[in-house]
Amino acid sequence: MTATAPEQNPTGSGEALRRLLYPRSIAIVGASDNPTKLSGRPLDYMKRFGFTGRILPINPTRSHVQGLPAYRSLDEVEGDIDLAMIMLSAEQTADAVRDCGSRGIPTAIVGASGFAELGGEGVALQRRLKAAIEESGVRVLGPNCLGMIAVRDRAMPTFTSALDEDVPLTEGPVAFLSQSGAFGSFVFSESQNLRIGISHYLNTGNEVDLSVAELLDGLVRTDQTQVVLAYLEGVSDGRRLLDAARYAYAQDKPIISVKVGRSTAGATAAQSHTASLAGDDAVFDGVARQYGILRVDGPEQMLDAAQIFATGRRLRGRRLTTLSVSGGAGALMADAAAARGVEVRAWDETWQAKMASVIPAYGSARNPIDLTGTLVAEPDILRRGLQVALEHPETDMIAVLLGCADSQSAELIDAIEVANSSTDRPVVVVWTGGSGRPRQRLRELGIPCYTDPGRAAAALGLLADFSLRPPLPTPQRPVGIDDAAARDVLTQARAAGRVQLDEYQSTRLIAAYGVPSAASRPVGSADEAVAAANELGGAVAVKLLSDRIGHKSDIGGVRLGLVDADSVREAAADLLRIAREAHVEDARLLVQRMAAADTELFVGVKRDPVFGPVVVVGFGGVLVEALADSRVAAAPVDTDTARRLLLSLRGSRLFGGLRGKPPRDLDAAAEIVARLSCLAADLSDDIAELDVNPLLLGAKGHGVVAVDALAVLSSAASSGATVVERL
Amino acid sequence: MTATAPEQNPTGSGEALRRLLYPRSIAIVGASDNPTKLSGRPLDYMKRFGFTGRILPINPTRSHVQGLPAYRSLDEVEGDIDLAMIMLSAEQTADAVRDCGSRGIPTAIVGASGFAELGGEGVALQRRLKAAIEESGVRVLGPNCLGMIAVRDRAMPTFTSALDEDVPLTEGPVAFLSQSGAFGSFVFSESQNLRIGISHYLNTGNEVDLSVAELLDGLVRTDQTQVVLAYLEGVSDGRRLLDAARYAYAQDKPIISVKVGRSTAGATAAQSHTASLAGDDAVFDGVARQYGILRVDGPEQMLDAAQIFATGRRLRGRRLTTLSVSGGAGALMADAAAARGVEVRAWDETWQAKMASVIPAYGSARNPIDLTGTLVAEPDILRRGLQVALEHPETDMIAVLLGCADSQSAELIDAIEVANSSTDRPVVVVWTGGSGRPRQRLRELGIPCYTDPGRAAAALGLLADFSLRPPLPTPQRPVGIDDAAARDVLTQARAAGRVQLDEYQSTRLIAAYGVPSAASRPVGSADEAVAAANELGGAVAVKLLSDRIGHKSDIGGVRLGLVDADSVREAAADLLRIAREAHVEDARLLVQRMAAADTELFVGVKRDPVFGPVVVVGFGGVLVEALADSRVAAAPVDTDTARRLLLSLRGSRLFGGLRGKPPRDLDAAAEIVARLSCLAADLSDDIAELDVNPLLLGAKGHGVVAVDALAVLSSAASSGATVVERL
Repeated sequence: MTATAPEQNPTGSGEALRRLLYPRSIAIVGASDNPTKLSGRPLDYMKRFGFTGRILPINPTRSHVQGLPAYRSLDEVEGDIDLAMIMLSAEQTADAVRDCGSRGIPTAIVGASGFAELGGEGVALQRRLKAAIEESGVRVLGPNCLGMIAVRDRAMPTFTSALDEDVPLTEGPVAFLSQSGAFGSFVFSESQNLRIGISHYLNTGNEVDLSVAELLDGLVRTDQTQVVLAYLEGVSDGRRLLDAARYAYAQDKPIISVKVGRSTAGATAAQSHTASLAGDDAVFDGVARQYGILRVDGPEQMLDAAQIFATGRRLRGRRLTTLSVSGGAGALMADAAAARGVEVRAWDETWQAKMASVIPAYGSARNPIDLTGTLVAEPDILRRGLQVALEHPETDMIAVLLGCADSQSAELIDAIEVANSSTDRPVVVVWTGGSGRPRQRLRELGIPCYTDPGRAAAALGLLADFSLRPPLPTPQRPVGIDDAAARDVLTQARAAGRVQLDEYQSTRLIAAYGVPSAASRPVGSADEAVAAANELGGAVAVKLLSDRIGHKSDIGGVRLGLVDADSVREAAADLLRIAREAHVEDARLLVQRMAAADTELFVGVKRDPVFGPVVVVGFGGVLVEALADSRVAAAPVDTDTARRLLLSLRGSRLFGGLRGKPPRDLDAAAEIVARLSCLAADLSDDIAELDVNPLLLGAKGHGVVAVDALAVLSSAASSGATVVERL
Repeated sequence: MTATAPEQNPTGSGEALRRLLYPRSIAIVGASDNPTKLSGRPLDYMKRFGFTGRILPINPTRSHVQGLPAYRSLDEVEGDIDLAMIMLSAEQTADAVRDCGSRGIPTAIVGASGFAELGGEGVALQRRLKAAIEESGVRVLGPNCLGMIAVRDRAMPTFTSALDEDVPLTEGPVAFLSQSGAFGSFVFSESQNLRIGISHYLNTGNEVDLSVAELLDGLVRTDQTQVVLAYLEGVSDGRRLLDAARYAYAQDKPIISVKVGRSTAGATAAQSHTASLAGDDAVFDGVARQYGILRVDGPEQMLDAAQIFATGRRLRGRRLTTLSVSGGAGALMADAAAARGVEVRAWDETWQAKMASVIPAYGSARNPIDLTGTLVAEPDILRRGLQVALEHPETDMIAVLLGCADSQSAELIDAIEVANSSTDRPVVVVWTGGSGRPRQRLRELGIPCYTDPGRAAAALGLLADFSLRPPLPTPQRPVGIDDAAARDVLTQARAAGRVQLDEYQSTRLIAAYGVPSAASRPVGSADEAVAAANELGGAVAVKLLSDRIGHKSDIGGVRLGLVDADSVREAAADLLRIAREAHVEDARLLVQRMAAADTELFVGVKRDPVFGPVVVVGFGGVLVEALADSRVAAAPVDTDTARRLLLSLRGSRLFGGLRGKPPRDLDAAAEIVARLSCLAADLSDDIAELDVNPLLLGAKGHGVVAVDALAVLSSAASSGATVVERL
């Protein structure tokens, strides 16, 4: 992990990012002689912590700044400058960026606030800054950001409060990207308290140029960074984030993210805080799952996970062996593990006997293994117990549970360290109570250590989820999509000036993507309805058909289960009257063969402003209404992804077939979801929203059938821009 | 909080418990001169920490023990002895307890292990100990326990490792009861690291005499203890626990509990650990909710809550105002709060203006309130912001979010302390990063402080749940219960040697409790079935009726929706044939009027081995099968409790009436649950289990109707013992 060059990334920004992330020379434009002022801090930090490159204070009025020779301008500096930290007022910043461009400096960090986050005049200043960036070609981090720490080289173009005091810094494979400055700094500080090895800490600020997604992409393309922590408030270029996530996923580099905006209050606060769009939380949640981003609730969970991911170890299975000084702690760990999908299984008798032979008779060799309190006086029990656990072939990971025992901790830690060094399986410790010194010592040895079993279990669960993630899908376009037919439907609708398609046209559209609907006939009169019903045979539904009526049920526009000519005729006449009363003069009717009542799904597609076209699935009927049980994925998805999406629904046991029903046709449902997701991706310029609801799901082998569909067209066929401008 | 006498409790054990919890003289039987040996530690601890009462070492072979004058036997001691700590081998313990009894010592703690937890010979030793206890009348804590710490008086009859090192102890209103010794000690140690004020720490061990429930009851009856923390592995006398919880609830004393056994692995581990019965976790979970026990997942959550409950403050509402140095932290807090039922609402414009006048222009006065990083240099911003928040009438609680800033912390802490002292509303702090010293200082000032917003929000959520809990119900017996009719059904069944009631008899039984069923007629032949169907009118169901068939659907014993004589006759003949083929020669049939399809509930009652009769409710059909959505409460419950039980179901939105349906008759459902819970309580000796499934729930005002019921009789009419003997 010594090479530093980011691999070339598709956007060609690799070289600039490399010089931002690993600068060998940093100019501080507007460096103050006062080390406590914001504009004095970057220099102070780099002096104190010992930046290994050149520090270049730029100050037109001083020959020396904080004891270092200063330059009156960038032009006076000889040799390359990798990075300029611009510590001027918002008004002066755009010019300074142009100066960087003239001087050939590839990257700059803008610390000043007073841009778009303030509104008003600040918005204009940010536009000026953006223009300067575009004209100069300088890549800029910020504005309104605290800057960056590159731990290995002690490159610290930052005025974060986290370096106020002399703290021991731990270098390592974990990068931390934060859209919040102050809070990010606090969390960085905690990471150092926990001895988590950090490669970089970056605060993104207003992201006028470099977005959190592009920075994340750059980080995962360095050799040093093996894990990325991300505190996110709002992502502008969602698709780029997903590209970076996909690359990280393939490279076995986990992204662990806190994303605010789960609640309305949180989303509003994030928005007012950084002028960023928090976005639809369900969409973020869905695409994060889809792309292997591990979403956690807060910084402690993020750092808990970082401790274990920083070891670089992976799991081959979910089986945890716990060795405990206390039966109580072991029982609690077993509960906590189960809640996180980690298994604490009883060992088989042969292995129990092996373990029993090295632990006290009143202990338990079953797993959770109770080594008993004797352990504290006889650390050899722990040593031998760990040895047996490491030999045990069905132990995928080990948790050691201890507590207090400060004065006996050295030998216990030694036993753990020996075991940890002799395996590539994850070993974690829960050490509750006492002074905390043993915990800190273990972390210094690179052994994750927690105070509470539940937090250790949560971190192990995330490691299991990531280690055992499914392979990245190779997107495959379903066969038999009739692009021409789909275009035809849309062209007709556009020509007729429609804003939405009626059910029949919507049905034709999804049919072009291979999605079957219940047989139906559009008709114009009650007589035609009777004829169509005869032709279809059996019970029929009659529905109002108009592109001016969205939710026809709401106005009583649907009649179900009509079995004879009289009732069809009566229903048809009735519906046409309703349409007239609603001033829908051109309404027609759809006569549709009734499908047997069955498990109901809904599948929707829509264009998310952040992540572009997405597909939403859920159970229809009671489940979705009572529980809001739905899941989102970025479109398109292949059938494997669609199947996982469906199986991740809370009501997924319904696919197994309940109440005496045979299993449902999950394969068919997954295929239809994949097909509709293709439609979403192909037609994202034209289709604002399309709902298939219900989609009736038959028994295995019997497929699915759509019973209603409604497509809403985009208000203007846009250029497909899915990126919200970040001011 | 200086008075110490427990109020008299119903069991009359108050005086003994008082002397256990507040001993003025402690004999240590078997005290060792070696302070590091287990039997030397209690004396060492009490000397070092300074027990305010008399320490009486009993050792037949030494004149002095650890420098204190020793006695050869208990009889040599003059004056009262409140408590004996027996540190002898398991074999010697029973005799020592008898000696205590002869000497008039009311209470003893038995530290030795080697009793029932070992099995074999240990079980016999525990029986001997139990006999000695019963004969001597001495109340005993243990055996196999670490003893007790009474913090105020430094009474420390314990050999817990938590006192190994000299730690500052904090006295206060929080008692901690633990069924795990080692783990309990670690958690006690953490509580002291967090400066949580503790009254007592007790480890219960094998509970041969004093159970965790009785100890809990004793603690909540002291003036000093205002909060109880309980680490539970298995409760033997469930009803006693509920009595104690009810008393605590009424006295405004929260019980915060970690209970292992959520998972099978955890339950098994707990069981093998202390030979205790973990019990049915869903039952514990249900009764805990019912009796206001705050169940948390692990020790950190328990201590997080204890920090805030130790302040004694309560909430009048759920509205949180957050004042933050970082917009990011505020946004995260808003999310975390929402997840815990705590509201971060935007302030109204008038109050926003007041706040805006005291904070920087680029901050946010909206709530979450962003005081901005300027705060660190100008602590007066925090001071003024807190002042406005305290004046704001819709602020029920305040969270201050800070980080790092060690060197500026004194003034910030002072501002918080001033605000905290001037209000009785809860004030908590989240201080992320930095050295941790500010956190510790705040805790020393009695101000709850956390590192992560999520943990603060969880603790505030628990405080809100407890503060705003519903009043304790005054149990009211529903009118119109026909005890004689119920007895009659059971007597007949017992006389006929039945083990279960058929559907018709089950229906009669619940009818006696005022639970309506769909109209039905028991018949013996196909002809009688046709006649009954005619009499009932409309569509009917025909079902096999036999007390030898439990789940008649499983053998095809139910025919639904029969509308004419032929189909009734055919179904009846068919069912009788099925019965004959199943060798149920005496089967009859039940002809039942079909009820309209509607929202389905199920209500079950059963006798739990720990908590006695309980009632279980859930939605029928898809929801219960797909989601296992059910809730449990100890019987009987009144209608208010029943309503809350129903509304706590995950699918509770169904009561509102979904898919165009009007709201359901929740009142009627609650009444029926209350009635069936009365049946459970009244007939707990006779009824092992009774299921009403489905109970069809009509629209508001239309009531409910049972469509099937099955009662299983107890194998022997027992004495109603619900207490499992704890060996």
